[in-house]
Amino acid sequence: MAAVSVCFCLFFSVLFCSSRAKFEPNWSSLDSRPLPEWFGQAKFGIFIHWGVFSVPSFGSEWFWWYWQKKKLQPYVDFMKKNYPPDFQYQDFAPQFTAEFFDAKEWTDIFASSGAKYIVLTTKHHEGFTLWGSKNSWNWNSVDVGPKRDLVNEMATALRANSDLRLGLYHSLFEWFNPLFEQDAANVFKTNLFPTTKTLPELYELITKYKPEVLWSDGDGDAPDSYWNSTGFLAWLYNDSPVRDTVVTNDRWGYGTICKHGGFYTCSDRYLPGHLMERKWENCMTLDRKSWGYRRNAVLKDYMTIQELVTMLVETVSLGGNLLMNVGPTPDGRIPPLSEERLRQMGSWLQVNGGGIYNTTPWRAQNDSRTPNLWYTFRPQDQIIFAIFLEWPKDGFVVLSEPVAGPGTQVELLGVGPMQWERPPSGGGFRVRLPPLTPREMPCDWGWTLELKWAK
Amino acid sequence: MAAVSVCFCLFFSVLFCSSRAKFEPNWSSLDSRPLPEWFGQAKFGIFIHWGVFSVPSFGSEWFWWYWQKKKLQPYVDFMKKNYPPDFQYQDFAPQFTAEFFDAKEWTDIFASSGAKYIVLTTKHHEGFTLWGSKNSWNWNSVDVGPKRDLVNEMATALRANSDLRLGLYHSLFEWFNPLFEQDAANVFKTNLFPTTKTLPELYELITKYKPEVLWSDGDGDAPDSYWNSTGFLAWLYNDSPVRDTVVTNDRWGYGTICKHGGFYTCSDRYLPGHLMERKWENCMTLDRKSWGYRRNAVLKDYMTIQELVTMLVETVSLGGNLLMNVGPTPDGRIPPLSEERLRQMGSWLQVNGGGIYNTTPWRAQNDSRTPNLWYTFRPQDQIIFAIFLEWPKDGFVVLSEPVAGPGTQVELLGVGPMQWERPPSGGGFRVRLPPLTPREMPCDWGWTLELKWAK
Amino acid sequence: MAAVSVCFCLFFSVLFCSSRAKFEPNWSSLDSRPLPEWFGQAKFGIFIHWGVFSVPSFGSEWFWWYWQKKKLQPYVDFMKKNYPPDFQYQDFAPQFTAEFFDAKEWTDIFASSGAKYIVLTTKHHEGFTLWGSKNSWNWNSVDVGPKRDLVNEMATALRANSDLRLGLYHSLFEWFNPLFEQDAANVFKTNLFPTTKTLPELYELITKYKPEVLWSDGDGDAPDSYWNSTGFLAWLYNDSPVRDTVVTNDRWGYGTICKHGGFYTCSDRYLPGHLMERKWENCMTLDRKSWGYRRNAVLKDYMTIQELVTMLVETVSLGGNLLMNVGPTPDGRIPPLSEERLRQMGSWLQVNGGGIYNTTPWRAQNDSRTPNLWYTFRPQDQIIFAIFLEWPKDGFVVLSEPVAGPGTQVELLGVGPMQWERPPSGGGFRVRLPPLTPREMPCDWGWTLELKWAK
Amino acid sequence: MAAVSVCFCLFFSVLFCSSRAKFEPNWSSLDSRPLPEWFGQAKFGIFIHWGVFSVPSFGSEWFWWYWQKKKLQPYVDFMKKNYPPDFQYQDFAPQFTAEFFDAKEWTDIFASSGAKYIVLTTKHHEGFTLWGSKNSWNWNSVDVGPKRDLVNEMATALRANSDLRLGLYHSLFEWFNPLFEQDAANVFKTNLFPTTKTLPELYELITKYKPEVLWSDGDGDAPDSYWNSTGFLAWLYNDSPVRDTVVTNDRWGYGTICKHGGFYTCSDRYLPGHLMERKWENCMTLDRKSWGYRRNAVLKDYMTIQELVTMLVETVSLGGNLLMNVGPTPDGRIPPLSEERLRQMGSWLQVNGGGIYNTTPWRAQNDSRTPNLWYTFRPQDQIIFAIFLEWPKDGFVVLSEPVAGPGTQVELLGVGPMQWERPPSGGGFRVRLPPLTPREMPCDWGWTLELKWAK
Repeated sequence: MAAVSVCFCLFFSVLFCSSRAKFEPNWSSLDSRPLPEWFGQAKFGIFIHWGVFSVPSFGSEWFWWYWQKKKLQPYVDFMKKNYPPDFQYQDFAPQFTAEFFDAKEWTDIFASSGAKYIVLTTKHHEGFTLWGSKNSWNWNSVDVGPKRDLVNEMATALRANSDLRLGLYHSLFEWFNPLFEQDAANVFKTNLFPTTKTLPELYELITKYKPEVLWSDGDGDAPDSYWNSTGFLAWLYNDSPVRDTVVTNDRWGYGTICKHGGFYTCSDRYLPGHLMERKWENCMTLDRKSWGYRRNAVLKDYMTIQELVTMLVETVSLGGNLLMNVGPTPDGRIPPLSEERLRQMGSWLQVNGGGIYNTTPWRAQNDSRTPNLWYTFRPQDQIIFAIFLEWPKDGFVVLSEPVAGPGTQVELLGVGPMQWERPPSGGGFRVRLPPLTPREMPCDWGWTLELKWAK
Repeated sequence: MAAVSVCFCLFFSVLFCSSRAKFEPNWSSLDSRPLPEWFGQAKFGIFIHWGVFSVPSFGSEWFWWYWQKKKLQPYVDFMKKNYPPDFQYQDFAPQFTAEFFDAKEWTDIFASSGAKYIVLTTKHHEGFTLWGSKNSWNWNSVDVGPKRDLVNEMATALRANSDLRLGLYHSLFEWFNPLFEQDAANVFKTNLFPTTKTLPELYELITKYKPEVLWSDGDGDAPDSYWNSTGFLAWLYNDSPVRDTVVTNDRWGYGTICKHGGFYTCSDRYLPGHLMERKWENCMTLDRKSWGYRRNAVLKDYMTIQELVTMLVETVSLGGNLLMNVGPTPDGRIPPLSEERLRQMGSWLQVNGGGIYNTTPWRAQNDSRTPNLWYTFRPQDQIIFAIFLEWPKDGFVVLSEPVAGPGTQVELLGVGPMQWERPPSGGGFRVRLPPLTPREMPCDWGWTLELKWAK
Repeated sequence: MAAVSVCFCLFFSVLFCSSRAKFEPNWSSLDSRPLPEWFGQAKFGIFIHWGVFSVPSFGSEWFWWYWQKKKLQPYVDFMKKNYPPDFQYQDFAPQFTAEFFDAKEWTDIFASSGAKYIVLTTKHHEGFTLWGSKNSWNWNSVDVGPKRDLVNEMATALRANSDLRLGLYHSLFEWFNPLFEQDAANVFKTNLFPTTKTLPELYELITKYKPEVLWSDGDGDAPDSYWNSTGFLAWLYNDSPVRDTVVTNDRWGYGTICKHGGFYTCSDRYLPGHLMERKWENCMTLDRKSWGYRRNAVLKDYMTIQELVTMLVETVSLGGNLLMNVGPTPDGRIPPLSEERLRQMGSWLQVNGGGIYNTTPWRAQNDSRTPNLWYTFRPQDQIIFAIFLEWPKDGFVVLSEPVAGPGTQVELLGVGPMQWERPPSGGGFRVRLPPLTPREMPCDWGWTLELKWAK
Repeated sequence: MAAVSVCFCLFFSVLFCSSRAKFEPNWSSLDSRPLPEWFGQAKFGIFIHWGVFSVPSFGSEWFWWYWQKKKLQPYVDFMKKNYPPDFQYQDFAPQFTAEFFDAKEWTDIFASSGAKYIVLTTKHHEGFTLWGSKNSWNWNSVDVGPKRDLVNEMATALRANSDLRLGLYHSLFEWFNPLFEQDAANVFKTNLFPTTKTLPELYELITKYKPEVLWSDGDGDAPDSYWNSTGFLAWLYNDSPVRDTVVTNDRWGYGTICKHGGFYTCSDRYLPGHLMERKWENCMTLDRKSWGYRRNAVLKDYMTIQELVTMLVETVSLGGNLLMNVGPTPDGRIPPLSEERLRQMGSWLQVNGGGIYNTTPWRAQNDSRTPNLWYTFRPQDQIIFAIFLEWPKDGFVVLSEPVAGPGTQVELLGVGPMQWERPPSGGGFRVRLPPLTPREMPCDWGWTLELKWAK
């Protein structure tokens, strides 16, 4: 494998081969790498699914697959009704125009949401790259459609206008790439596809855009050895320009998910009911039915802000990060309802961010007596947070898990110190909330009690 | 004028000339017609601006005018940047596809808003008709673009699925119609345009779709005599199939606005500070900058639900109807954020509709002491409604205008009876509101007190 | 009818009503007008079929009718195979681009053919006008497609660069115009369509472009009284700016063809076997199967130059004019093979034009003994022409019809004087042709003997 | 190099490595291969330039290069005038529709021309492949545009319906392929492009379509070592399925043209004034200005049939083959004028093919006294042919080069035996041609005298 590594060093002359390499290209070595600290503190990121699938924006970002491989009736009918008989998926690409795409505007929206990083699909399973990949000639956003390097615009605007960190999503396999199909037909004994497409593109993405999240996806049922994932990750961790801060996930080959790599994603919309040994991320999407833009999504298809806040709180309490997805339009806009949800998240985090960012799971995750109440903990100052998602009818919040000490102080974030007492029933706290008019409410959807000097 | 009337009777053989005619084709006679009662009771309607302008959906529904007549820079630049040099407005029409248009879905959304009527642009100043007008060959939605009679689909679905009444918007003039331009060049001494386009289309709209609102617009600075408005209205009021229930507005020729016709509109977003002698309507739009769909509208361009409720309350209190506009997309969808606003309106009216529908202005319109508090009155049961838009910090609402009687009862809609007292300062009421948790609140954005046996 | 005439005079203020009117609006008066002399002398014109039908350019210029009215299988299949399900004929219009149309180039080609006039379809049965007709808003070449006044460009270039006369083709009816359909449904008892479309356009065409041929077509089975053809023709002959030189044809209403009007056309490709009392024209087309451009026409669909010369000679000999049609492409070119045919005609007329232009039919039309030999006669200098289409094997041409006199001289056009003798068999001439090598031949396809001082 | 060969054998598993290899991968070995006999006998082939460049069909098939690299004014202006600002060359591909392409019809036309082989551009410098190349995903005729394997359709129809042999044109380099650009920037020290694109495609073309002409082009100024041309040719000559009959040309790397490979092409429109040691081919095109279809080509841009016959005769007399190019339209037609030229060639060869096919250059190429007279020689029966392109005025053709023997016989092809004599001036022949009427002429443009028993 060393030979291969050297080979790539020579091959991609932009790279340098350092001598301080620590990680070896095998999972036991790679899995031993500690996750850079920032990721565990960030808690909340924005996922962006954008590509040629945003043009039909019908059904799902898996449009191509469902239409031509699965031949699902709604997709077949949609095409029959609206397009000429020989219209192919590739014919959608010129309509991916992005004329309203303004990366600075997107950055402002993302920053307003309280998110700390974004993850942009640089290439989904369709294989279309949002940058001018040399290995994807005429099937990328510089050659057709937008005629722009969308990855670069996003990366540049993000860095110039925010503290958000850049993450890049990249699909290993491509549904219909004939070189992949050929390798697959050879039961992955040949590797034309990874050597001429996947790996060159991965190296280019890292060296060119220096992302701090590399969100891998789509192993195509091929083992990590086919993808040479361990070889690539060893380079990424040892020698790449982002070796110190980059985080990756667990989708690096058949069987690696929830088992190897960086943080775990396990499955889409992953939300375990318990703590996990390894850092994990819950990726979900505003539109319940699709990650890519779906023109005919209606209001009830979008998650409500109450649901979103609930999901963030539960995820963070259980030790995960929440990666919330938006699907921009083919002309380059964040749909206004998505913008509203993001800004609502931001307004909530403005008040309650103290209980979210930089926290870790606490001893208890939720309260054993009060439903819809979740705990987090901030190690640096030993503060416990109790986030309740339902305002109690009688004005009393009961916290049965923390143990009060002599100097325990309780504060409702956005309001101020609260009176508390031991509940009649025994241990824990009983916090009396003041009656608040709608305008006095610091926020909706969830409220945070901060406990100092408690355990 | 009688001769002309006969002429039209012969000309448009679908019509019949009744002998029970009461109204003469002059303003003093026409203005004397009482407005059918339903309109004053309905209070809330939905305006729909849809047409070829929904395709560029840039800037405003006045796109064509601003681009080619006014040559405003943003429009000129937009076209230069995105289209071939000789691209004309007419070339947008084939992209007006309406493939997702489902009139039943629209009806459901409109009904959920609490509105009692809709007004659809059957033809805006661009001249493109949303039905297959014989007088607009190849510039209508059946011949190009959707290839469907959109007016008919909307009318049919509305009647089959709701109690909403149908209103049709119709522009008298057309910016660039060469026959209108020719008449204009002749200082309106010729009337080729009204006789071959406007009038046939108006008669067809009424007899074919039987709308109960005819919302006229766009006099093109031509006098009503040029348009033969009084002749048409005499027919509409005397002999048309909707003579008993139809209402019209006041845009029937240069100088008629706010002066002649049916209800007054006076100007867009009309909201007088006082009562008016005649019924009026405040038409406004969710997108602050445009009536037609505007792709690049962002969240802050949309009115907030707080602003919308406030505007409805103020309008109704002053005796007007509110006509709230949405701009559907060229592929036939109500944008989800617009849907959200409409459903929010509906959820508010669900609780507070008692103080809105079937009411009239009361003695006082707003309270002289308590800001943001508006009154309405329901004649049938002599109930006074006080709608307050800000929940008082101390929990007491002061109503200084009504006079309590011995059996006066006060109820907070959605909650129940309220305690009240005379305020220390003297007359009126002082209503004590209970402290309510967020989930106990019957609604947000405004609350209604119902006063029985008060004056 | 006088009232109507006055009405139009007022109606179309560009016109003036002269007092020197000679022709009355009835056929016996109109038919008495002598045909302006130039037309009988011109012999050869170019017909040009161009319009939206040039875009599909499949099957025929009757594409729309065959596809949507007749539902002929090849047309239905063509559309199904290549276009989306709801694609309409009107959607072809934007692809009528004319970007290569150069009226001067066309003029050069037409002039090189030896033709003396052209006839351009200003509006075929599809109703699309090649000029910016006010009465055909958004269905004309200025509003959509070329965005140019094609009639004006052609007229201007023709006059500036050639001696060719301008002719304009105009279809009275329009297949799918809803106003025509309505009149037809009323058994032509109403006349909305002629008064708002046909007549205004006819008057505009004449006054604006001053054509010297007005080639009417397409009565739609409606009588001339419906079209007010006699009223229009009376104006055309009496008062129009082209009253002195304009010629018209015989397609002015159901039953007028081959019976009333100007020259007779009788049927497409009309070639009677005998002389006719009235001047006639044989209109035919290079592509045997279509008048409009047909993309998939192959070589054998085009008439050969031998066939074309034969047809010209036969037509002229029988007293007709030949109107030879070309179908330009949607991007504005004369197909090179059509150009070749036209230039070949010109090269032939360069040599043989003496026997064609300014001639009349002679006593005999063709020779009773020698096949494929036709006669013409030039009255001004009493010359007989004998045009033979086959070069005799033995080198002797026998002319059995003319009678030689003492000073009779015979010349082969393009070569010189020929020896002749009385044939052994009796009357007439026997002309000895010299052996000529291919390069000595003055022309191919037909040769002309000029007979002076013969009878 | 053996290792490389093995490598490819493994790499492209469809291939087999034979042990009977004779040729080594170096020029001295490869150049020693005798040209398969059929090619020298065929004399006349049809070249077909078809690709995305056929869509703009403006200027030349080098459109992309002239427009975007050279920025030639006419190209820049054409795009500015007719397309949106960000329109790229790739956007033309969907308009390459080929809906009228019928390979059988093409075959009929090609066969009728008398040609013995065709050469189709499977991939021009634009890189777009006319078959579904795995190495050109989404930039080939199966994925976009026609959605058909055009190479396969052509190959299949040719073999099923004619005796024509299949030739495939293939460009080594691609103007704008980023991998080629990268190699070029590395002064061709890297070879990413040939290994991932050119070579896989060449092997695929040969094994899949089994062409008998491989017409290489476009070395991009890179040496043959970069292209691994000798390695490929060794495989082609030793082991490919067409090793026995395939011919190639001389365009295999910088400096190889007119020096190495199979037959020489030297330059486009190559016509040396003398014999050459090696077999050569004169490739030229019907449209003087372009190889690809050019919409705005006019009649005079096309070569006349006289010029074409002259060029064929001269080329064959000098030992070359003539490869005559046609440029089909984007919708898949041979333009009718091109069809006419091809069929005219065929009609000429029908009569004169005896003096063309299976001949070799004779002792003299043209006559020293009679201009425009060329000689060929048929070794199998020792017949000398004298082709004269101008019919002599006096009816006598003088052949000064051949030497008559006692039994010498002279025949005019298509007519019969001719009388001849020794010219008064001395050696050679003086053949008396009969006077022939146009219909007796066996052909136009050139005539062939067959000399038996002469030297």
